[in-house]
Parts: sequence; structure tokens; C-alpha cells
Amino acid sequence: MGRTSDARQKILGAARSLIEGRGYSALGVAEICKAAGVPKGSFYYFFESKEALALAVVDEHWAVQRRDWEGALGGDAAPLQRLRGLLEQTEAGQRAVQDDCGTVSGCLFGNLTLELSNQTEPVRGRLQEIFDAQVDMVEAVVAEARDSGEVTVGDTREAARAVVAQIEGQVMFAKLYNSTRHLSPLWDNCRALLGVTAS
Amino acid sequence: MGRTSDARQKILGAARSLIEGRGYSALGVAEICKAAGVPKGSFYYFFESKEALALAVVDEHWAVQRRDWEGALGGDAAPLQRLRGLLEQTEAGQRAVQDDCGTVSGCLFGNLTLELSNQTEPVRGRLQEIFDAQVDMVEAVVAEARDSGEVTVGDTREAARAVVAQIEGQVMFAKLYNSTRHLSPLWDNCRALLGVTAS
Repeated sequence: MGRTSDARQKILGAARSLIEGRGYSALGVAEICKAAGVPKGSFYYFFESKEALALAVVDEHWAVQRRDWEGALGGDAAPLQRLRGLLEQTEAGQRAVQDDCGTVSGCLFGNLTLELSNQTEPVRGRLQEIFDAQVDMVEAVVAEARDSGEVTVGDTREAARAVVAQIEGQVMFAKLYNSTRHLSPLWDNCRALLGVTAS
Repeated sequence: MGRTSDARQKILGAARSLIEGRGYSALGVAEICKAAGVPKGSFYYFFESKEALALAVVDEHWAVQRRDWEGALGGDAAPLQRLRGLLEQTEAGQRAVQDDCGTVSGCLFGNLTLELSNQTEPVRGRLQEIFDAQVDMVEAVVAEARDSGEVTVGDTREAARAVVAQIEGQVMFAKLYNSTRHLSPLWDNCRALLGVTAS
């Protein structure tokens, strides 16, 4: 069992890394298995299709990112400070990948959304759930901030959606210019989107 | 010459359509030529590589979109009304594609940015130039609006970048949910980002 689960993790890790670098569509199962160092025959023991692998990569990445988001947006700090923490964590995460491999990899979910939405409905559905969950989490913090008079925004759902859209747009620029400096204005931009009252 | 240029346009049109539907990486030259209805041998008469084709698709799309953006952002209307016109035009364009082919195709430049930035430097460079030009155009309007006291924003460059990031983020959501309703809040969100003073 130890070796079995090890092979599955190796395939997932290799697929995640290859998808981040070159996208999903151009990858072949043989290439993924070679990068993972596992026999090609074992792929279909763990995944019934390449699409099933894509879903598993997405799920695994979200399990980690959800914990990070919950960590940043939970806790006892004032709601806007928690939101700021999330933005700083996002910037630090992109910078860490750049330091490690030389390029800003962007957001795996954003990358796959633009590449796969119109190709595979199961992946589209999973990505919808993830972005819905992200907007839920941001909205809870925005609603708290509104209740305490820190923001003036009317529709907390649309405001939270605008914040996540701003993150995705600026992360896209960070990838395009291979520079995390595009993430520095995120906090000021989100303050403006939320109509933050205090300076 | 008439037939020659016709074949080139057929290849460009087929490539644009295939790239919008399935991305660039998974496409082969044979498939593009088949969709274009031209002999495979003729591809390399017009394009020295698949990358050269990608650049030509990007250039052709930008030539059209630049005129659209200049049309919306130029003219005699008040600066913020011109910006609003651009956002409405963006929404209408995505809706027209959806009406035509059933799916929101998103932004070709955003799609290729996330797919190709870390794979081909010439495409990355061209996409950087295009987004820089978009930010330039929006910034000119924002600066006008600031001069006339309609917006309170400090850094017009960052504000314009935030507007383009917001467009890209919401267009991504429109593609993900296959719904252009995500583009309706763009104007309110951009008003907030710019610190619009009037109601």
C-alpha cells in the first residue's frame, strides 16, 4: 500500500508541475509517467482518464489552498486585516514559486479555467465550485467589515466577486510580466472596490 | 496573389477559431490546415512555425480590437462615459460570441497569456505590448477624468492597470460560468477602483 500510494502521489506531483509549466492539453500520459518515474501501465490503475487526473490535481491543490485561505481569513484580527493577510499571502506564494523555479506560475485554477472551461464540463464544474468557495470566504469577511462600518459596499456578493476577479487579473499580469510587483497594489485596489471608510 | 492571400487568411481564421476553442498547445499544423481547407504543404509557405502563426493570430485580433478600443475611448463624450462605453462593448462582444457559438470564449489575449507566457518568449513579449497599450489607453481617459475632477485616484497608471485586471478577471468568470452576467458589474467596480466622485 505504501508503494501504491507513493506512485499515485508521484503522478499527481509530476502532473501538477507539468500543467503549471505547459498547460494540460498538450500533455500526454506517457510524458507524465516518465516525469513521475512510474511505469506507464500504472497510470490507469490510479486514474481512469487524463481528465480524472486533472480533477485530482485540482482537488489536491484546492485542499492545500483552502487551508491557506481559511488560515488567512479566519482568526481574531479585524476583518479587513485578515483580507489584507490573504493578499499578502498570495503575493508571497507567487514570489516563492518564482524564487524556486524562475517564473511566476500564476493561479492553477485561473490557468485551467481559461484553458479547459469550454473543453471538459467536469473540470469546469469543479473550478466553478472552487471559485464559488473563494467568493464565499471573501464575502463572509466583507459582510463582517460592513457590519462593523469599515466598508460601505452595498452588495457583498458582487464586492467579493470583484475582489477575487482583481486577484485573478493581477496574478495574470504577474505571470505575463514574470514579476510579482503587480501584486503589490492588490490591497489598495481591494480597499477601493470595497469602499473602505478608514484610512 | 488573390488566392495566396486567401489561403493565408483561411489558415489564420481556422487557427483563431481552434485556439479560442481548445487553446494553442494541443493544436497541430495538420489539424489547422484541415480546418482551413488548405493543403498542409502550404502552411510553411505562409508561416515559418506554429509560433509565427500564433503571433499572426494575436496581431490580427489586436488590429481589430485596438480599433474597437480606440473607437470607444476616443470621441467627444465625457471621459468616464467613454470608459463605460468600452465596458459595455466588451460585454456585448462576449455575448455576441456566446449567441453565435454557444459558449463565452473569453479574452484571446488573457487565454494565451495564461497558456503561453512561460513557454514562448516572443508570444509573451507581444502580449505584454498589447496589455501595455490597453493600459495606456485606459490611463489616458482616467487622467482626463482626474483633470476634470471626476475621479479622485492618485496613481493613474496603477488605476488603469486595476481596471484592465478587473476586466480580465470578470471575463474569466464569464467564460468559467458561460454567462455574460459577470460583466454587468464591471462599470460599478471600475467606478469604485477609480474613486468616482459623482453619483
